[in-house]
Amino acid sequence: MQYRQIIERIYDELKDYTGHGKVAGYIPALSKVNPHSFGITVATLDGEIFSAGDSGGRFTIQSISKVFTLAMVSRHMGNRLWEIVGREPSGTAFNSLIQLEQEKGIPRNPFINAGALVITDRLMTLYDDPKKDLLTFVRELSGNSGLDYDKEVALSEIEHSYRNLALANFVKSFGNIHNDPQELINTYCHQCSISMNTEELAKSFLFLASGGVIPSSGQRVCGTRSSKRLNALMLTCGLYNESGDFAYRVGLPGKSGVGGGVVAVIPGRLAIAVWSPELNSNGNSYRGIEALERFTTYLGVSVF
Amino acid sequence: MQYRQIIERIYDELKDYTGHGKVAGYIPALSKVNPHSFGITVATLDGEIFSAGDSGGRFTIQSISKVFTLAMVSRHMGNRLWEIVGREPSGTAFNSLIQLEQEKGIPRNPFINAGALVITDRLMTLYDDPKKDLLTFVRELSGNSGLDYDKEVALSEIEHSYRNLALANFVKSFGNIHNDPQELINTYCHQCSISMNTEELAKSFLFLASGGVIPSSGQRVCGTRSSKRLNALMLTCGLYNESGDFAYRVGLPGKSGVGGGVVAVIPGRLAIAVWSPELNSNGNSYRGIEALERFTTYLGVSVF
Amino acid sequence: MQYRQIIERIYDELKDYTGHGKVAGYIPALSKVNPHSFGITVATLDGEIFSAGDSGGRFTIQSISKVFTLAMVSRHMGNRLWEIVGREPSGTAFNSLIQLEQEKGIPRNPFINAGALVITDRLMTLYDDPKKDLLTFVRELSGNSGLDYDKEVALSEIEHSYRNLALANFVKSFGNIHNDPQELINTYCHQCSISMNTEELAKSFLFLASGGVIPSSGQRVCGTRSSKRLNALMLTCGLYNESGDFAYRVGLPGKSGVGGGVVAVIPGRLAIAVWSPELNSNGNSYRGIEALERFTTYLGVSVF
Amino acid sequence: MQYRQIIERIYDELKDYTGHGKVAGYIPALSKVNPHSFGITVATLDGEIFSAGDSGGRFTIQSISKVFTLAMVSRHMGNRLWEIVGREPSGTAFNSLIQLEQEKGIPRNPFINAGALVITDRLMTLYDDPKKDLLTFVRELSGNSGLDYDKEVALSEIEHSYRNLALANFVKSFGNIHNDPQELINTYCHQCSISMNTEELAKSFLFLASGGVIPSSGQRVCGTRSSKRLNALMLTCGLYNESGDFAYRVGLPGKSGVGGGVVAVIPGRLAIAVWSPELNSNGNSYRGIEALERFTTYLGVSVF
Repeated sequence: MQYRQIIERIYDELKDYTGHGKVAGYIPALSKVNPHSFGITVATLDGEIFSAGDSGGRFTIQSISKVFTLAMVSRHMGNRLWEIVGREPSGTAFNSLIQLEQEKGIPRNPFINAGALVITDRLMTLYDDPKKDLLTFVRELSGNSGLDYDKEVALSEIEHSYRNLALANFVKSFGNIHNDPQELINTYCHQCSISMNTEELAKSFLFLASGGVIPSSGQRVCGTRSSKRLNALMLTCGLYNESGDFAYRVGLPGKSGVGGGVVAVIPGRLAIAVWSPELNSNGNSYRGIEALERFTTYLGVSVF
Repeated sequence: MQYRQIIERIYDELKDYTGHGKVAGYIPALSKVNPHSFGITVATLDGEIFSAGDSGGRFTIQSISKVFTLAMVSRHMGNRLWEIVGREPSGTAFNSLIQLEQEKGIPRNPFINAGALVITDRLMTLYDDPKKDLLTFVRELSGNSGLDYDKEVALSEIEHSYRNLALANFVKSFGNIHNDPQELINTYCHQCSISMNTEELAKSFLFLASGGVIPSSGQRVCGTRSSKRLNALMLTCGLYNESGDFAYRVGLPGKSGVGGGVVAVIPGRLAIAVWSPELNSNGNSYRGIEALERFTTYLGVSVF
Repeated sequence: MQYRQIIERIYDELKDYTGHGKVAGYIPALSKVNPHSFGITVATLDGEIFSAGDSGGRFTIQSISKVFTLAMVSRHMGNRLWEIVGREPSGTAFNSLIQLEQEKGIPRNPFINAGALVITDRLMTLYDDPKKDLLTFVRELSGNSGLDYDKEVALSEIEHSYRNLALANFVKSFGNIHNDPQELINTYCHQCSISMNTEELAKSFLFLASGGVIPSSGQRVCGTRSSKRLNALMLTCGLYNESGDFAYRVGLPGKSGVGGGVVAVIPGRLAIAVWSPELNSNGNSYRGIEALERFTTYLGVSVF
Repeated sequence: MQYRQIIERIYDELKDYTGHGKVAGYIPALSKVNPHSFGITVATLDGEIFSAGDSGGRFTIQSISKVFTLAMVSRHMGNRLWEIVGREPSGTAFNSLIQLEQEKGIPRNPFINAGALVITDRLMTLYDDPKKDLLTFVRELSGNSGLDYDKEVALSEIEHSYRNLALANFVKSFGNIHNDPQELINTYCHQCSISMNTEELAKSFLFLASGGVIPSSGQRVCGTRSSKRLNALMLTCGLYNESGDFAYRVGLPGKSGVGGGVVAVIPGRLAIAVWSPELNSNGNSYRGIEALERFTTYLGVSVF
């Protein structure tokens, strides 16, 4: 089968492509990972799964969780969402405070940290038990009811969250955060600590390849139009200050996390997740992006 | 036929949607246009043309020309292109000098003015007679050998180019422009003054819907991969500080100009051009974008 | 006597100069003040006091307190002080986060909020009982052992400190704050709430007019050189983004607070304090500055 | 005599203080200077001159000329001057374009390059023969009718003026420059090329120590108030992004140029000029500033 051959080829080509970046080291719990871990999974709409490498190894999804919370919140808010957050690429580092000040507390998009905090703040207001409800949602998406938070990572991140606490207080000073900043950081650090492997991650993004429906269960997560729009947001804003580069090289909607995960979607076809913990200077998994570029090149498919 | 019905419906729905913006007024020659002009053309890969409204009215394509010069220069430079210009969305107004200073004369992408000037500077170095060669290229793309510069607009823009002259001198101070700044502005203002109607514009973008080949002549303009990459650049950077919004609402690679033109591409299928001169605060044709959003909505197609 | 005549003339000329700005309204406790309050006091090195208007009315000194904490901390740190804070005018609004990010947590100077927080953080580390010790210091300077914090204002500010809490967390993320951000804000809001009248304020700045000695008691607060340097800092950075204007119009080292107080020093001669709560768009008392400009004009004296 | 002893002491202490910076190298004509040149001159109001080192060596005054053009233009414009230029320290590098864009073509102060260009533009409008009139003015100030432009430096700077040409075009795009940008650069590069030694430079700044009068001739250059205000501007903005540091260390109004000259004023007493071509990272003569700091320390005098 085509997909199997392609990902095995990529795995072979890149299995020694290491040492060109650093594992996220801002908290001890993250830096303990094996930097050479490398897993790939393709999940297709018709239910096939193709994996190579450490596809069973769990890692925290970090910023990839922003797609899940956004999907949950946009379901309730619809177009009112765009009154509290923008949808333009930010053009600066993912935790920058500059644009936030110029734009009076309305973050540029939901995938920079300030924007994700605004989304999680609304999640806390809209849902009865946000941490539990988020976990339920991700379990449904992935089809694995055993998924959970990595408490050690979550607690460690909470202890090192001065920058995000600054962001939360700053946005709150503009009136665009409604919950207590410290409680918000607590929820946010938990969402970042969701622990998945590439197979679970690829499956959990299939709803964005299928117009908003979870293929395995037939459950509708969001409308077709919403699904397309989430993909548009990922394509323009999903990889921090490397989003344009990712669109250029890979040509697919995608999202990355500092845990080393990257996931991308071919609408109407499949989702693909890669895990490789070493990060480039933009905070993205350089081997993950390289693997995805080869995947679309060998497959001859992109959204363009 | 589906396309005909859709664009006629859109034309009817939006023919009175005026008065919500202003015609570009920075030069007298541009402000003389009828602000209510409104034309739409769909050009398909199999050679069909569907138009509504003023599809025969000519307008200057302005920044849309940046796609043509980029295609001509990237043909010669390949990946070396990315040493002189970036490919990230800029996150600030299209003529901003801020990021340029921070990034030492390497413009963020080829579609902000500074980036387009760098591209035109290389065009002047790479081609024997850049103004004539550009015209030849656009005539081939559109299939109309009568296309020409609007000299009145070109001369008028040259006289009011202090901002672009500042950009050119600024980039030159970093060593990233090699020709004389005033001559560069002359060439640049000419490229912006290319005068087309929506039918010619739609046809001239078909090569980006067909993997780099002009469908009517079979002539190859660039490789399939280059074609996809130009589309990726348009999607992330094509509408100035409204690119994210355009990706979200329209979901297609596109490019706009302050002359009121907007053009978009559905890879594998068609190109669509709209002309409506009134601009929103981002310098884009608000009715043009609205028409394109309805087109993808009614057609049920986007790249996502 | 010259001073008496001059301040009485200024009082008469400006007593109806109101309605051109707004009392600080970000906390209820501050906005309750009578906006037309107007007091002036000149305190000379030889012990004379000349007052006009509401010179006995108390107001919270707010940012003027930054001079007192700086004097206390610089006594212990000497030149090491300049490793944790700069001494350049900031060129942006007083609570801006932009420069702080660019300069990695080293605030531009001790009089912008971020810089003052760094100073207060060191005060907390260097002194056993910082709140009590600060009060003791200000009581000695002013010769009034009854001076105290305005607890109502302090508590109200603590409740509305999201912006300063953001600053504190942000600076802490760079490692330049050592105490708990919330405790730091508590101390900081207390220092801002010190309540004085113009007579007490003028007297408490006399040490900067006399080379570091409190004239009434002969007690040395700091060396002559330190005293001069504090004056230099006030002249270049003392009035937020209006410091250049103040130097130009008034020509003296000075410091303002959003409580409506402004104080200035003529080295070798006197200190002068004005209170008028209505603020201009830069957060400074416009009538206070106008009164000081007339004072140096009528007296024919500035440092230049 | 005190002054003689002090400057001889400083000369001895600092004569080997070299190698810690670089001579301005952006044009060949500037980089030919002997980097170890070192001259000091004190000129007093009562006509005494004290020099040490290469006080007869000529250098181009560069940005120090901004004080002369400002004096000439402010004479004609009075307070209207502040409609075209601000008077706040800039807080960023001297040729930054950032603030200029944010503040719509009104430069922060007359001593950053953009501000100086605006002033020279007005000089060209207000004076019949600006280059000749400027020379006449500087000759009167210095008492040396032989002073002249260094044509080689002027022409060399004109050829390397892309950054300043960018600034001029940028400000012109906001309507705040009225002459042709290239002609403006021509005049500006000439003013920067005025060639003086420390004795001539010190004498030419005496009018700012004497309330606006040239002591040797009794000629009034400007009013007492204007003189004080020029001093205030020099103190807050005279040394680019090192102005706060200079005020702190030296405590006098001063102005520097990339030719290695620095000049300062003790109002009511003297002017002092130092020449030492090696520059620090802020573009200021580090030995010049050190010499001035020692001068005020040994003399025990500053404006504070």
